[in-house]
Amino acid sequence: MKSPLTTLCYIEKDGQYLMLHRVSKKKDVNKGKWIGVGGHFEAGESPEECLLREVWEETGLHLTSWQFRGILTFESEGWPSEYICVYTADGFEGELTACKEGTLAWVPKEKVMDLNLWEGDRIFLRLLLEDAPFFSMKLSYRGDALCYAALDGKELEQL
Amino acid sequence: MKSPLTTLCYIEKDGQYLMLHRVSKKKDVNKGKWIGVGGHFEAGESPEECLLREVWEETGLHLTSWQFRGILTFESEGWPSEYICVYTADGFEGELTACKEGTLAWVPKEKVMDLNLWEGDRIFLRLLLEDAPFFSMKLSYRGDALCYAALDGKELEQL
Repeated sequence: MKSPLTTLCYIEKDGQYLMLHRVSKKKDVNKGKWIGVGGHFEAGESPEECLLREVWEETGLHLTSWQFRGILTFESEGWPSEYICVYTADGFEGELTACKEGTLAWVPKEKVMDLNLWEGDRIFLRLLLEDAPFFSMKLSYRGDALCYAALDGKELEQL
Repeated sequence: MKSPLTTLCYIEKDGQYLMLHRVSKKKDVNKGKWIGVGGHFEAGESPEECLLREVWEETGLHLTSWQFRGILTFESEGWPSEYICVYTADGFEGELTACKEGTLAWVPKEKVMDLNLWEGDRIFLRLLLEDAPFFSMKLSYRGDALCYAALDGKELEQL
């Protein structure tokens, strides 16, 4: 069984985030969405061990500098709950390669909100862009509709 | 199957931490050790939902103010890996009750290091006491012996 823990990383370069358009896998909770890179923990991995391995597997890049920004509790009907360790990374080595999970693209930060994103991603991406302190956010979906969001244990009212 | 995610909370009052002496359960990875209170996530719980429920179940206290301080990746031979969300809490309501997991005691912070602790707990308790920023720490044990520790993905050399 896959670990319920995953990593999700937004790699930064020249005011852009490296975004992944999930178009490759047939059965994919993220199908058609733009997200960061990352994936499930393997047995015994720490968040950082998973982060470095997944970024390397999906992009060919070796991270040299990263920040642990927050944790998401992600619920979506019909899928097991996921606990997502969210990172940004501002240092890497190597050349970008193709990703078997979808199409990679550098997207200017101010254009990221124009992409097809999970509704809740807009909430935490704002926290990343505003350089907010470490956050714990719960996001519960029915299908594509966000039905509950909480930040640090307090429900967000604007939904 | 139990979630690999747990919470661990050090509740503060008048310069003391509320510590739990794990002496009640026969089969217990923590047997004889002093730790904070907490426990395993239930299905779909966020870290904060687990925190508030576990603190209430184990102490009878309702937390009103808490801080998410770090994440531990805890490996111990013969036990499944655990991912421990570490909190301190400086506000609560209610009266302390008995705990079925062991004996609760308020311990002055400067005496905490004198208790029978996991070796690695001494490392992250120092970070808590020094008010360090959010940390991710991996601690790998063989039996009671700490054989590997890493902070934010970098191995700690002093072992």
